[in-house]
Order: sequence, then C-alpha cells, then structure tokens
Amino acid sequence: MNQYMERVTRLRDAMKRSGADFFMIPTADYHQSEYVADFFKTREFFSGFTGSNGTLLISSDFAGLWTDGRYFIQAERELAGSGIVLMRMADPGVPTIGEYLLEHMPGNGVLAFDGRCVSALEGIALSKQLASKNVRFRTDLDPAEGIWQERPALPCSEVFLLDEAKYAGETTLSKLERLRREMKQAGTDCFVTGRLDEIMWLFNIRANDVECNPVALSYAVVTDECKILFLQKSSITPALTDFARNNDITILPYEEILTYLQEMKQPERVLFDAAGLSYALYASLLARVGEQGMQEQDSPLQKMKAVKNPVEIENIRSCYIEDSAALCKFIYRISKRARKAQESTGESPAPLSDEEGKPVTEYSAAMELDALRAQIPDFVELSFPTIAGYGPNAAMMHYEADEDNAAPLLAAGMYLVDSGGQYLRGTTDVTRTFALGPVTDEMKKHFTLTAVGNLQLQSAVFLYGCTGKNVDILSREPLWQIGIDYKCGTGHGIGYLLNVHEGPQNIRWRFTPGQKEAVLEEGMIVSDEPGVYLEGKYGIRIETILLVRKICENGDGTFLGFEPLTFVPIDRALIDPAYLTPQTCSVLNAYHQMTYEKIAPFLNEEEQVWLREQTAPITIPGCEQQ
Amino acid sequence: MNQYMERVTRLRDAMKRSGADFFMIPTADYHQSEYVADFFKTREFFSGFTGSNGTLLISSDFAGLWTDGRYFIQAERELAGSGIVLMRMADPGVPTIGEYLLEHMPGNGVLAFDGRCVSALEGIALSKQLASKNVRFRTDLDPAEGIWQERPALPCSEVFLLDEAKYAGETTLSKLERLRREMKQAGTDCFVTGRLDEIMWLFNIRANDVECNPVALSYAVVTDECKILFLQKSSITPALTDFARNNDITILPYEEILTYLQEMKQPERVLFDAAGLSYALYASLLARVGEQGMQEQDSPLQKMKAVKNPVEIENIRSCYIEDSAALCKFIYRISKRARKAQESTGESPAPLSDEEGKPVTEYSAAMELDALRAQIPDFVELSFPTIAGYGPNAAMMHYEADEDNAAPLLAAGMYLVDSGGQYLRGTTDVTRTFALGPVTDEMKKHFTLTAVGNLQLQSAVFLYGCTGKNVDILSREPLWQIGIDYKCGTGHGIGYLLNVHEGPQNIRWRFTPGQKEAVLEEGMIVSDEPGVYLEGKYGIRIETILLVRKICENGDGTFLGFEPLTFVPIDRALIDPAYLTPQTCSVLNAYHQMTYEKIAPFLNEEEQVWLREQTAPITIPGCEQQ
Repeated sequence: MNQYMERVTRLRDAMKRSGADFFMIPTADYHQSEYVADFFKTREFFSGFTGSNGTLLISSDFAGLWTDGRYFIQAERELAGSGIVLMRMADPGVPTIGEYLLEHMPGNGVLAFDGRCVSALEGIALSKQLASKNVRFRTDLDPAEGIWQERPALPCSEVFLLDEAKYAGETTLSKLERLRREMKQAGTDCFVTGRLDEIMWLFNIRANDVECNPVALSYAVVTDECKILFLQKSSITPALTDFARNNDITILPYEEILTYLQEMKQPERVLFDAAGLSYALYASLLARVGEQGMQEQDSPLQKMKAVKNPVEIENIRSCYIEDSAALCKFIYRISKRARKAQESTGESPAPLSDEEGKPVTEYSAAMELDALRAQIPDFVELSFPTIAGYGPNAAMMHYEADEDNAAPLLAAGMYLVDSGGQYLRGTTDVTRTFALGPVTDEMKKHFTLTAVGNLQLQSAVFLYGCTGKNVDILSREPLWQIGIDYKCGTGHGIGYLLNVHEGPQNIRWRFTPGQKEAVLEEGMIVSDEPGVYLEGKYGIRIETILLVRKICENGDGTFLGFEPLTFVPIDRALIDPAYLTPQTCSVLNAYHQMTYEKIAPFLNEEEQVWLREQTAPITIPGCEQQ
Repeated sequence: MNQYMERVTRLRDAMKRSGADFFMIPTADYHQSEYVADFFKTREFFSGFTGSNGTLLISSDFAGLWTDGRYFIQAERELAGSGIVLMRMADPGVPTIGEYLLEHMPGNGVLAFDGRCVSALEGIALSKQLASKNVRFRTDLDPAEGIWQERPALPCSEVFLLDEAKYAGETTLSKLERLRREMKQAGTDCFVTGRLDEIMWLFNIRANDVECNPVALSYAVVTDECKILFLQKSSITPALTDFARNNDITILPYEEILTYLQEMKQPERVLFDAAGLSYALYASLLARVGEQGMQEQDSPLQKMKAVKNPVEIENIRSCYIEDSAALCKFIYRISKRARKAQESTGESPAPLSDEEGKPVTEYSAAMELDALRAQIPDFVELSFPTIAGYGPNAAMMHYEADEDNAAPLLAAGMYLVDSGGQYLRGTTDVTRTFALGPVTDEMKKHFTLTAVGNLQLQSAVFLYGCTGKNVDILSREPLWQIGIDYKCGTGHGIGYLLNVHEGPQNIRWRFTPGQKEAVLEEGMIVSDEPGVYLEGKYGIRIETILLVRKICENGDGTFLGFEPLTFVPIDRALIDPAYLTPQTCSVLNAYHQMTYEKIAPFLNEEEQVWLREQTAPITIPGCEQQ
C-alpha cells in the first residue's frame, strides 16, 4: 500500500470517529501567507503532491486533489498510486470544490476543515454555496493530529524591533492612533486581524517565521481600550517586553487567541477583513456579537502600510541603489564570461565558465547573485527565491532552477533574472533580461517593445483618482499592437521589509471578482513589469520599481507620476531602434544617465567602464543626443 | 406679484388639498429622455428657470431650485423675484434634495411627485434615503394639472417603419426572439421598458416626438406570450397597423400602460432596468408581483442595440462619408472667406463675410452647415443642436449660439464646430476645430497634443474584455503630460437613427456610482473626442467616430481595434510637428489619405484642390513620406 493511501485511510478512520462526511485540506497556514512553513504542509503529507497550490478533499469513498494548470503534469506524476484523483481546475466539466460538495454532500452532512487554515472569505462563500444542503462545518479538527508523527515544529523565531526613528518612520503609538480613528469612522470599537505583514507593520516588529517574509506568527486585537499582540512565547525577547510595556501593548500567548475572543469584554461592533482573518476566528467573533456586530471591510492597515512615509522612502531609495548595484555587478560578471565564451573556438554556442573554469548554470549563477546581495550590510534574507531562467526556461513566469536540474548558461540568446532582497531599509524586487551572445531579430523586437511599455508606464502622468486599471495599457499597448499579451498583471505593491507582494494597489487591465481596484496614492510603490513569454522559445521581463509622486496640482486636479527606484541598465544589445519611439528613447537615455550617476560609486573601475558603455545614450531620429 | 410666485402659490393650494408636504418637480418627460418636449417643461413653468437641468422643490414655506454650476449665473437672473431660492449643487454646505428632505420633512410626511417623471432608480434611492422618516410618496399628481392653462399638447408625430432589409438589418421578430432568450436566461417571463430608443430599435420603428431623437412616446411589454407596444392613437398609421398584425404585435393606447400593468395576467418574475422605467410603472409592477417577483438589471436591449449588425454598419459607413463631405464643404467655404478677410486691409482681425457681403456669425455659419447636411437625400433632422463656438465661446462644451447673441467670426484664432445629423442610414456626430487666421504657439501645442490623443486612441489595439476605462488614457495622456485635463468622458456610444448618446459602452477614466463600465464589443460605435478648454481663451475638440473591429485572434486572446467612420481633415495649420510623434504622424497621414480618397468624389473641383492640400502628408523625423 502506497504511504499516502495509508495516511488517507487513517484520516478516514478519524473522520468516522468525529462524524465528518468530507475533510477539506487546503494549502495554507493560519494567516493566509504566500509561502507556508513545513509545519503547514499537511496537504502534501496526505497526497504527496508538492506544488504550491492545491486542495485535497477526502470522503469515505472519494479522494480528490484540486490544482491549477501549472501543476497538471507534476500532480499526475506525484499522485500516481495514491488513489487520489486529480481534479484539473478550470478544465471544462471539472466542478469547483464547492460545486462538487453541493452535488455529493449528504443533506445535513458534516464538512470538516481546520478553521484556522481557511479564510473567513472562503468559509463564508462555501457556507452560502452549501446552504441548500444544510451542511454543518466542523472547524476544530487538525487532519494531521495523531497521524503525522514526524511533523516539523511550528516555526518560532525571535521577534526584533524595527528602530522607529531610523527605519519605521512612524511610532507604533501613532499608527495605533490612526487605526483607532479609522475604526471609529467605520462605527466599530474592535479590530481583529491575522494578517502577519500588517501586524508587523503596526507594531514596528519583524521576525523570521515565514520564508522570505520577515514576519512572526501572530494575531492582533485592537479595541478602544487595549492593544493586544498574540505571539509564541519563545519568540518574545526582553527588548520586546520593554517595548510593549512602554507602549502599553499587552502580549498574550499565540495559542490563546480563540479563548481570548470568547472571553473578552463583548465589543459593540467588530471591524474585520474577511480575506485577512481565518474562518475559525471569524466564527468565534460571530458567536459573540452576531451578524449585526460584524463589520466587514478592507483592513485600514492595508492602505496605511502601502503609503510609505518619508523615512521609509529615503531608506528605500538608498537600499534600491545598493541592491541595483549588486545586480549590475552580477550582470557585468556574467556578461564578461559570455564574451569570453564567445571568443572561444570550441562548440557553438559555447558554455559559460567561471573564473575557476567551472561551468556556470542557472543555479550556480543564482547562488552568485544571492551572495552579492548578502554583502549589503543590512541584508536580512531574499525577498523570494531567485528566478533565473536561461532560454526556454525563462518562458515559465515562476521558474526556479534547482541544483540538479539547472540549465547551463550558453553564449547565445537571452537570460532572465528576477530577484530581490529583504533589508532593514526595505524590500526589493527587480527583473532584467539580457543577451549572452547572438540574438534573433524577433528577440530584439519583442525586447524593445517590452522596454517601450515599461518606459511608457514609468513616464506616465495621471490624475489623482486613477487606479492600476487606468494606466495598465501604457505598459501593455506596444505588445498588444503586435498581438501579444502577458498573462499576468503589470505591477504589484511591495512591503517595507515585508512581503514582496502587497496590496491594495496593483496594476492590471482586468480584475476578477475577488480582486479590488485601489486608487494610486502618493507614496505607494508599484512594480512595472511587462514581458513576453513564448513557450519553448524564450521569456522576456523588464521590471523596474516605481514610487508614486506628485507632479503638480492645478485647477484640473492633482497630477501624479512615477520616480524609478531601481537603477539597472536595460540591455542595449537587445534594443532595436526601429521599434523605439523618440519619447521612450529620451526616457531611456535619461534613465540610463541616472543609472550611471547613482550606481557607479558602488562599482570598481572595470565595472564602471562597462556601466558607462551600457548606459550610453541611444540616438534615433527625433531623439538626438543632448 | 411675480407670475411664478403666483403659480407656486396655486400649487401650494393644491398641495394643501391633497395633503402633500413637499412637491418635487424634476426636468424630465415620462421616459428619461435627454431632450424634453415643451409639454414637459413644468419646472420652467413654475420657476421661470430655462436651463436644461434643475429640480424644483416646494413646501408651504420653502421653494428651492437645485441646479449645477453651468447654470448658477443664469438661474440667479431668472429666479429673481420669484421667491425661489437657488440651491447650488455640489457647492460646499449645500444639501442634496434627499439630504434637504431628510432634514425638513415631517415624520410620516407626504412627498408628492409625478411618478412618471422620476425613474425607478431615483425613486427607490429617495425612498431608501427617507426610510427613517417613514415618508409616504404620492406619485399620481401632475403639478401642472389645473394650473398650466396654456400648456402645449403632448407631442404626437406619425410613427414610420424602418425598412428591415435595407436599414434595420434584423427583423423585429428576430430581435424579440433574442430578447426572450435573455429574459429566460434571467429567470423572468416579463419585460417592461419605457426607454424610447430601445423600444424604437426593438420594433424597427421611428417617429419625431422628441427633438433630435427620432422616437415616439411609447412603452413596451414583452412576455412569453405577447408583445405589446403602447402608442398614442394618432401616431398610428395603417402601415404600422399592418406591420403589427404581420408580426403578431399588439398595439394598445399609450395612456393605458398603468391600467394594463394592473390588470394583465400576473407574471412570475419581471425583468426591468431601474434607469429605464418610471417610478410609477415600477411601483405598479411591485404591487402586482412583490419584491421577489422583480428582477432589476441592465436592459438586455442596451447591448443588443449598441452592437451594430452588418447592414447597419454598411449604412453607417456610407452615411458618415456623406456627412463628412458636408462638413468638409462647410470648412472649405469658411476657410475661403477667412483667407479673403485676411487679405483685406481693414481692421485686424477682419470679420468674415459671405458671398453676398453679409457678416458671418456663429449662428449664420451653423445655419449654413445645417443646410448642407439637409441636402443629403436621406437626412431626417439634426442629431443635436449644432455647437459652433468662435474664440472663447468654444471653451463652453455645450455652447449653442442664438441668433441675437452670436459672435461674429474673425480671421484669427480658432473655431470649433460640433454637429451631426439623423439619416435613414444612421446617426452622426463630429467635431473639428480649425484656424480662421493667425494662431498662437500655445494654441498649436494644445491642438497638436489633442490630435495625438485622438489618433492614439484611434489606432489602439486591445484585448477583448477591455472597457472604456482601460483605453481612455490613450486619448488623455498627451494632455495629462502637460497638466491639462478635459472634464468629460472621452467617448460615448451612438444610436442608429436614434439618440446621439447611447450606452452601455463609454470611454472615461473614472465612473461615478451611477455609471456602469461595459466591455467594448465588436460592432459597437464610440466617439473619440479629447479636447482643451481654457475659460475665456479658447476651446479645442477633435471628435472622430470609431467602429470597434476585430484585429486578430490567437492563443493570447481576441484583439480588437478601431476603424474610423468620420473623414474630415485635422487642420494642418494647427499642427506643430514638434509635438507630433512619428507613430501618430503615420496614423494621421494614413487617415488623411483615406479622407481624400473617400471624400473627394463628393466635392467639386475647387473643393478637391483644397482637400488635397488639407490632407497632404506631414513629414517629421522618423515618419518620412511614403
């Protein structure tokens, strides 16, 4: 018997004892984090499927795994022999989990799931969908309980304080005061959240519980009378205890949140964000205050956190320059090896080798880049695993090379590197695509049009009130003109020493029902990352991070624009001037000039010479060199 | 005693008799038409205020008129002596009507209004807003009843049939079948509408009851079993009676709609569009079927009507060419007179005079243009009163010169003409701004950037799924770059021998709560009309009508673009090549070449020579003449 089959059998026994008809096991921690720690890999434990997205549904005679198109092939392979059926999400005729349950759930049946691993948003939607069946939820069961013997421990790193004057730029007391004003305006006297990044931001603390996200497992409750932070006991340091005392913050044990909600002084009306609270916490609050006492809306902390303050902005500016310099050094190093390989007389295209003669692969190169970043003094960790794809691998948007399976870099075609770091001065994210040798005319055309889109958005001027939906087309239009689209948004927000993806703002041309449009505010940060992805051929992405700034204010309104924060050259070897417009050529030349000025001080002489070449102005009719 | 004060006093007497605490009198007919016939000018009758937008509110001790900023000066003047207070809408501290009523209405009070003149949307919103006061609506009173002795008659023109093969392109039976499919899909068995343009479209009929809109006062009820058209008796012709008989359509008297709704076989569920039905009809339906039986959604006819069929498109193409030719002849004629005036040695700038030596004014020129349009064989009427503004007058977006108050045209500066006609082959709308003599560099800069925006939108390519919100910035961005905005949408839909403004599509950068975003569909028609309006100085608008067309379809989706329908030169005398981009220069040259090819056949030799000059290619670096 396959080990997964055996585990599912044991779960079925437990279900029988607890009276559950179905058990739903999503891929999630208690906080709807983008990355989950090993402790939370319950779905993988029962199914063997290792992909980042998937939900397992088990009944006495059915076991199905729902995942999306990225993972169909991998899931088929990993599920083989487990008896678990692959449910191909969005394929014609394949029901959603809700639809499946609606059909197969017995009337008055019991659906079990760990209420801490499902958001209130999802739980409420499911309960509405199954209303006609009078389904009862059982949310207090952990499916791994008693079955997963060697389960890793819950992550628990030490919490550290973010210097309020030097890094945070606003005291936690000031943030709490602003939050309470927002709570009052919404007619509420209590706010509960489980979103880790907003809790870290609110209390000016950070930790290391989730990979790439410097956060601690935590909950927060703020009422008119108290401010409570729930943390695991061993993550608490004496410094934090002092800080809490000085700021009149109560720290309670992480695992007591549910009990606390059940026993606290009953609030009049609770403000909560259904996407930022687990169903378990939601249900517990609902039981206390009833429907009338629950006020669902976007968390006020989302926008507060997204609008960076002057101290944060100054830190981010300097941090992005050093981060850009690290990437420049990397590109110089790889380009030099590529030139050397081109000059060799061996096979064509020639493989790149490093200074010790060892072959350079996607994996080894990524390690080198990560090491360059780690040399920056306030480096904390990567902001996401480096995506470095050579040739056709770059066509996969979220490609991650592993050591055993990495392509060697060759002196031909294009190489895409998407990477970023966490620093005390902020969180970075940058993508550049560059040539390692001869490239085709088609590559240059696609690269140039991607650059034009990137630069058009960077130089946009727009009225206050615009959302990402208004400006998205500036980045996309040059590619749309030749019938090409990139199947993702153009841009996302970025945290400050927090998640590399944060809302509420984003730049996209359409919004699915769950996604919300947000007005672009002065002080917000967004990525600008158009691309071309040709399966089996190549991938291009150019990603520059932009700060929203005020341009002018007059009788027609307040005009906003962008200031670039990332300064890494856009590869001139891939630019075909025939597809460049004079306007974008000017923007590119100005950007390259700034890049040289800002980055050169961080480079050695050899690197400086290279950067000067890389940032030399391009001349086309209508855009002459100044 | 001022006559309006006297009229209000008589209304107050009537209110006392009927027990009404407030009487609300909006500017509207029974069908929420854009223009209202004299019969419906009740608000003007009681207040003396002649503007196109305003609502009068009367109680025993208060009389107030709400209107918007365009009319503050005029309203002050016209209300003087009437005892009616001007309520300046959107000014700080000025309540809306709902807010005013909420404050001043007695509990359990009675608000009277003619339920036929208020949409269900407005009525429902008002009733929600006043819920806490337990206000009762009295909607069966016409305020003019018994007071307005010399009230004009209800308009009643003869209905005519639109040839189904030649002009409508789809039989009414086919349209009704499609409507019934949509009704069924919405789970409804009855559809009721009071929107005149959609009723005309559905039954392939037209009339002349509303100025510039070729419609008949009417209602329609479609159920699974019958199709009923409500018309005034004397608008019915024998041909219409035959047509109705052949298509199994029942015609009932216009004034019987309410009785019919009260007595018809009770429907299971009624589909209605709250913006397209009067509150009176809504309330009557609600009384029959209850909340559960009412299904509110956008009328399915809106989108069906907006997507033009192949016959309509062919007619529109040919009609727009002839309409464009009329405007070209006009521009040629005025330009010739302007050149002559410039050569004169008299005052500077010299006034234009016509061939008989009479001075040319905004008014006389508009009359000439209207006469040129009227020569087109299938001309029916204007699609809106011609807007022809010289100099500073053009800065007023909806300026209409009257005979006694029209500015003379002088051989300097710019002249803006916005006009259109109703034809059996469609409805047109076009704006051009052109120079009558010397212009400033600033005028040329603003004109050129307006043209760039206009041409950028015209040449856009976008994925199916985009709305007007996605593409608006293409037209607006060149002006935003210099801190200028035009305070209106960029584009609107246009009917077929129907209203010059129609939904559901529109091109704007933001949507107020009442406005809906609609996906741009192949076959829809939109205007593309960016502009610059500098109060007291000048106005610029360039408006070209575009047809949405499919460009290509591939793995990335279906790409759409625009085909221009309007062909009138964009004045080269106002183009400063320094602000033109090579891309838009190419688009302009191609557009001008098409313009010559399509329009020249309709011109005499002299006019052709002029048009050839006007459409000659412009050469700038990066955009050389082919």
